[in-house]
Amino acid sequence: MRPITQTHQQNMPKTIAIVGKYYAAGIAELLTEVADFLQARGHNVVLESETARNLADAALIGLAAMTPEQIGQQADAAIVVGGDGTMLGIARQLAPYDVPLIGINQGRLGFITDISRDRMLPVLGEMLDGQFETEHRTLLQGDVKRGDELIFSGLAFNDIVVSRGAASGMAELSVEVDGRFMYNQRSDGLIVATPTGSTAYALSAGGPLLHPSLGGIVLVPIAPHALSNRPIVIPDSSEIEIEIINMTNGRDISVNFDMQSFANLQRGDRIVIKRSEHTITFLHPAGWSYYATLREKLHWNEYPSVDGQLR
Amino acid sequence: MRPITQTHQQNMPKTIAIVGKYYAAGIAELLTEVADFLQARGHNVVLESETARNLADAALIGLAAMTPEQIGQQADAAIVVGGDGTMLGIARQLAPYDVPLIGINQGRLGFITDISRDRMLPVLGEMLDGQFETEHRTLLQGDVKRGDELIFSGLAFNDIVVSRGAASGMAELSVEVDGRFMYNQRSDGLIVATPTGSTAYALSAGGPLLHPSLGGIVLVPIAPHALSNRPIVIPDSSEIEIEIINMTNGRDISVNFDMQSFANLQRGDRIVIKRSEHTITFLHPAGWSYYATLREKLHWNEYPSVDGQLR
Amino acid sequence: MRPITQTHQQNMPKTIAIVGKYYAAGIAELLTEVADFLQARGHNVVLESETARNLADAALIGLAAMTPEQIGQQADAAIVVGGDGTMLGIARQLAPYDVPLIGINQGRLGFITDISRDRMLPVLGEMLDGQFETEHRTLLQGDVKRGDELIFSGLAFNDIVVSRGAASGMAELSVEVDGRFMYNQRSDGLIVATPTGSTAYALSAGGPLLHPSLGGIVLVPIAPHALSNRPIVIPDSSEIEIEIINMTNGRDISVNFDMQSFANLQRGDRIVIKRSEHTITFLHPAGWSYYATLREKLHWNEYPSVDGQLR
Amino acid sequence: MRPITQTHQQNMPKTIAIVGKYYAAGIAELLTEVADFLQARGHNVVLESETARNLADAALIGLAAMTPEQIGQQADAAIVVGGDGTMLGIARQLAPYDVPLIGINQGRLGFITDISRDRMLPVLGEMLDGQFETEHRTLLQGDVKRGDELIFSGLAFNDIVVSRGAASGMAELSVEVDGRFMYNQRSDGLIVATPTGSTAYALSAGGPLLHPSLGGIVLVPIAPHALSNRPIVIPDSSEIEIEIINMTNGRDISVNFDMQSFANLQRGDRIVIKRSEHTITFLHPAGWSYYATLREKLHWNEYPSVDGQLR
Repeated sequence: MRPITQTHQQNMPKTIAIVGKYYAAGIAELLTEVADFLQARGHNVVLESETARNLADAALIGLAAMTPEQIGQQADAAIVVGGDGTMLGIARQLAPYDVPLIGINQGRLGFITDISRDRMLPVLGEMLDGQFETEHRTLLQGDVKRGDELIFSGLAFNDIVVSRGAASGMAELSVEVDGRFMYNQRSDGLIVATPTGSTAYALSAGGPLLHPSLGGIVLVPIAPHALSNRPIVIPDSSEIEIEIINMTNGRDISVNFDMQSFANLQRGDRIVIKRSEHTITFLHPAGWSYYATLREKLHWNEYPSVDGQLR
Repeated sequence: MRPITQTHQQNMPKTIAIVGKYYAAGIAELLTEVADFLQARGHNVVLESETARNLADAALIGLAAMTPEQIGQQADAAIVVGGDGTMLGIARQLAPYDVPLIGINQGRLGFITDISRDRMLPVLGEMLDGQFETEHRTLLQGDVKRGDELIFSGLAFNDIVVSRGAASGMAELSVEVDGRFMYNQRSDGLIVATPTGSTAYALSAGGPLLHPSLGGIVLVPIAPHALSNRPIVIPDSSEIEIEIINMTNGRDISVNFDMQSFANLQRGDRIVIKRSEHTITFLHPAGWSYYATLREKLHWNEYPSVDGQLR
Repeated sequence: MRPITQTHQQNMPKTIAIVGKYYAAGIAELLTEVADFLQARGHNVVLESETARNLADAALIGLAAMTPEQIGQQADAAIVVGGDGTMLGIARQLAPYDVPLIGINQGRLGFITDISRDRMLPVLGEMLDGQFETEHRTLLQGDVKRGDELIFSGLAFNDIVVSRGAASGMAELSVEVDGRFMYNQRSDGLIVATPTGSTAYALSAGGPLLHPSLGGIVLVPIAPHALSNRPIVIPDSSEIEIEIINMTNGRDISVNFDMQSFANLQRGDRIVIKRSEHTITFLHPAGWSYYATLREKLHWNEYPSVDGQLR
Repeated sequence: MRPITQTHQQNMPKTIAIVGKYYAAGIAELLTEVADFLQARGHNVVLESETARNLADAALIGLAAMTPEQIGQQADAAIVVGGDGTMLGIARQLAPYDVPLIGINQGRLGFITDISRDRMLPVLGEMLDGQFETEHRTLLQGDVKRGDELIFSGLAFNDIVVSRGAASGMAELSVEVDGRFMYNQRSDGLIVATPTGSTAYALSAGGPLLHPSLGGIVLVPIAPHALSNRPIVIPDSSEIEIEIINMTNGRDISVNFDMQSFANLQRGDRIVIKRSEHTITFLHPAGWSYYATLREKLHWNEYPSVDGQLR
């Protein structure tokens, strides 16, 4: 089992990229504040090119803009300002380069953007001084095949989801794992999620939480016909193949990657899913706890259902 | 509480309509067998017009064909040969007329087509002699409103389902019951089901079973974001209004009635759902038991998960 | 379907009983404040005898003490100060008399004690002036039979629960409804709950919410072996009979009523459950909404699981 | 990730122990048949001592009896005849010795006793000739501590379960993982299960399936008060500490290991759980598939809930 967190005392990152949530109100001031702080500490600060285009802010014009590819090649760390969705998008783009990511959340803290705006400067300072914890997250690689042809390929940080459209009665899928038949499944669809994705759509559909350092992938059926069809967690060394067997009332079935890219499917199409060779590295403030994030996000300290006096 | 079953000794139905599963192999022989049996007993037998068109079978040509409307007005009973889906389709059409329905299933018994082909003639004989149990099932009436305009209207025997398309991240719905705000819900959609529908899609999505004689309607969220969002059963005297508040990543949201008719929705559309003034009457063989059907269909006599020795 | 809420303009209650949470800190001051307020309005105020015994407070000594039986016979309303558990206990005792109950909660509002301490005096004033809504709740009556003998009998406001002890591997129960066999069930136990109880233990065990005006009872299995064993809602006119078939690894199985009274069971014992002839009447402030209570208690306005950006 | 299955061509086991289900009818004939078969092939066959005592069968008297400890030290393999429970019991006793286990099931096949009586001799022959697949399963080690004292210690192959008794309203537990606070939980109890146990009690309580080669442990709350309290899968390198915080309505709370050994607990007691240093090795017939077992045991080829025509 890989250790997930370590505290480092090491050389400070030299070049730091800033990535901002596009179009968010007040984002320019926030990014400027971060950039000024970093420059004052002597870091070389660059701005992600899309962020730069959206800002057009005088104070930031002085910063060099870099594409995600350039950031991947040249930056020592990236600071992402926004929500989990912002992080999701850039993390997939930076995945091949393993640039460490730090997440600052403007609003309510996310699962993976865990530094609040209020305390961001002192926390960043401590982290850049080497007081941080490192965490690695896996991604999924999905290839969509039609006969011998590869028709789509993508990475997912949360999940790869095969699902019927609104006008299709159901999807019938056949699932193999490592070349062994698992089941045929009639359902609204099937979610294949990483530990990171286990707190997103998979959770809504009844899946379990997976600790990020668990070497596992969870398959969660969406509204399955068979009542005994339960979520199953398999080793992340597994190769999963999902074949589209059938759909009723229509031809509307598709696969999506993190709900951000899509491919329409036909009967006979196969989606082959395995752990990506890439991983994503997050840096967290020292003392960070995954369980604290769960408690905060899932309201585990509250007992809504039952007044203590009732039982 | 309405009693659901009674055993009757009453005058035999005079005119009986036969409705067949369209396009099913061997259906002509089966319908002929039923028609001959009924005619030999002295009933006036007619054939549903769509069934007649699909059959084009010499032996049945002698029978008068009737539209569902004519059946509704003139027949004393209808015998439906097929699966639950066949019954579903004709039951909605006959709902305004309250013609009693008898269901014969060619294959595996259904929830509502509960006479097996093997024993159909003796069972039909007994039932037509007055040995049967009567059961009433409710329907839902749904009106889709855009501003002041009524843009769609339909009946549902199982359920009315509002759901996002495959490319929409989620649906945000606002639900009122009897003019009182219930909740805003972010989810894949919402199922509003009758007791009959509680064994169909609603069950797959985690809903409870509702006994057919319960005066209730169940609201079952599909993959809701809020983990505390549970199915709720409300009196079937309630009026439910669902408003489309929002959808992410697309404009693809729709409402369907028994998965057989559909309407595309826009933000601001409202679906008003209440119990239909019509009910459907099923006739079952004497001794019929709803719980026996559940046991059979849900495999309640099997204990798949745990070997007794393991606990 | 019974209407659940009405607003009344009627004669004020003359004699009002006060029931307090036993042993709670600060309860004496609170009860005194309520009593003074009521007396100043001209009501005849009495104190429940157990409450009086526990208080021994000078300011309240002037009040007559009444047993629950006397309250039932003589009081026009009872004000219960405490949590849902306090209300539960007194409601069962007052059930035969149908004295209307008003609930004041010292702490976090409950499902059925819905007036906050902060606003209690003005709210009580309005209610006693006739601005209230009336709601009726059903109870369950349970009889435990061993052979021909009735060995225990009780009322439940929330639920009647048959469950194995910690050292028994499981309970095997046989369930009949209205004389018809429903199923044999192997599980940790079975919860039979009223709509009121549907927000208590039944909810924790995966049951649906039942609106208080639904004429239903829900059966919720606890950790059932058969994965297809789902909660079922039946009409509250039903008579349910649960027989203890077997238990593994021990003889430890029992039945409890609202978790407040217990009976140990043996193989062959039967528990017969039906709706009690009594109902309980709650008075709520005008404008009270059951759904608002659900939203508040179940945190339905929060979306803990998924950041909007993630889907 | 450890590979779970390999096919071996290796030296045949010399000494083989036979373990039988105690007191089962027809077991003597079955064990004799196995013993004769093995002896005819030239293996040295011994009988587990408890099995021998219960049999007292002439034909088997010729076999040497060995305690589990002796089997552990001297046998090259053990053949277990019975159900999963029989296997469970002996596997825990043999755990320190890592003797490979083969399971023959008299009745319905189990999750881990997967050779049917019908085909047992030819299958055993093939396996003893080297045509088998090897699978390793983890166990849990649990230590119960009261203050500084170790009051109980045990191994579990399926699960370690902390649960309230029937008369206690609920258990309040505090859970730490690797020294980090996870949550306080109010519930009927908490199941800590291995992948093997994920198909037993944990599944009934709503837990996910874990593939046996996943390096994970699942925590499944039983009827938790907080609706957001979901099963969580953590790496099996984790150390879990559960502390008894409180119980309502009684003092009845206990911990059990595979439902076969028990300890009563008090407030403040702590249960420390980690993966045992031992593992259990199962031998399966060549071509064995974990997913095939799941399909068979969980009826994954059946679609009980919904007739295809209904959706």
